[in-house]
Amino acid sequence: MQSSPGAAYTATPRTTPARKRDRARYDRATVHAILDSEWICHLGFVVDGAPVVLPTMYARVGERLYLHGSTGSRPMRAAADGLRVCVTVTRAEGIVLARSAVNHSVNYRSVAAHGTARLVTDPGERALAMDALLDAAVPGRSGDCRPPDAKELAQTAIVRLDLDEVAAKVRDGGVIDEPGDVGLPHWAGVIPMTRSLGTPVPAADQDPAAPLPPYLTAP
Amino acid sequence: MQSSPGAAYTATPRTTPARKRDRARYDRATVHAILDSEWICHLGFVVDGAPVVLPTMYARVGERLYLHGSTGSRPMRAAADGLRVCVTVTRAEGIVLARSAVNHSVNYRSVAAHGTARLVTDPGERALAMDALLDAAVPGRSGDCRPPDAKELAQTAIVRLDLDEVAAKVRDGGVIDEPGDVGLPHWAGVIPMTRSLGTPVPAADQDPAAPLPPYLTAP
Repeated sequence: MQSSPGAAYTATPRTTPARKRDRARYDRATVHAILDSEWICHLGFVVDGAPVVLPTMYARVGERLYLHGSTGSRPMRAAADGLRVCVTVTRAEGIVLARSAVNHSVNYRSVAAHGTARLVTDPGERALAMDALLDAAVPGRSGDCRPPDAKELAQTAIVRLDLDEVAAKVRDGGVIDEPGDVGLPHWAGVIPMTRSLGTPVPAADQDPAAPLPPYLTAP
Repeated sequence: MQSSPGAAYTATPRTTPARKRDRARYDRATVHAILDSEWICHLGFVVDGAPVVLPTMYARVGERLYLHGSTGSRPMRAAADGLRVCVTVTRAEGIVLARSAVNHSVNYRSVAAHGTARLVTDPGERALAMDALLDAAVPGRSGDCRPPDAKELAQTAIVRLDLDEVAAKVRDGGVIDEPGDVGLPHWAGVIPMTRSLGTPVPAADQDPAAPLPPYLTAP
């Protein structure tokens, strides 16, 4: 399914929530923004009829997600023939404390992308994906490290999932209490959750006096 | 499979990594510590042969994981007959920057629990699970909110997954570079990743002068 750059993804039964449909988002800007704000996903696939969910790294390039792994790993071996996957990316942004137990909630932004992941074999696309995977976690890093040699390339599998059957879910804003609960003496509000990067710790064999590269010192 | 409290979980083909087996951990202390340090998991299940991965809340009580949802949600409806699941919990703790592209890594602690999730119907166990789910995110909160009424209870499904086929994976420590790469002029080290809670934001209808409950002000 090809879509124009600005068009929304088409909702399918799989990307239509059974409930709380108002949380679903299909516009590309929202989906891309969530995908670009993270770089760790949870990759789901099926082995012998049972689900397996693994945390792994990913990068978005246009309408494609790239994931990588050892050529010996289970999903990468299975992807040679096309592997049905669900790639889910989640940002938890707040704990919502309501007066009633059942109205407690979480503010979050998530994306789930469904489809068939396939091994990437084109050398140029593989190189692009490897750079994107490094730069997703540390923008700029792909230009400041030793590129893979032939043996390392042979040990690295890259798979691609085209963004096609994909949707975001967003819960944001404040507490939603039952009107009759508002007077109850329980504190209500939102506790923001943030993730941050700490001060880089040099490797034992790294000259501690060497300046940090600019991509690690930018605010 | 019943085990004594101190015994390790038994490794199975499913919980034995295809590679980097030294990262696998089967001792209960490690598995429990990771599970208790988080409260958002990624729940994998299979729909029409394809994987689905959803972020959701969980709580550990002894050798059980509890998850909840609306009685109308897909996994909760499916769990009435027993739903094959994989529950994965991930803490990302650092970005490992090596001199070579392929030796970049992530420090993380994760747990994957496999098995069949079943609906909990016993009222006492349901109440215990609901309290545990609130307290996993905000310890102490279950004692300071309005408990569910009969209608709310009827709308809430609780499922249980016994911890049986479960393992942790841990990557920690520093950079592992090829000996020949150590002299390269690329900064190497670890960038710590931390998640923190911000200052609670009172609801619009919350008296802003009311003191925060002690469980929100403890360090």
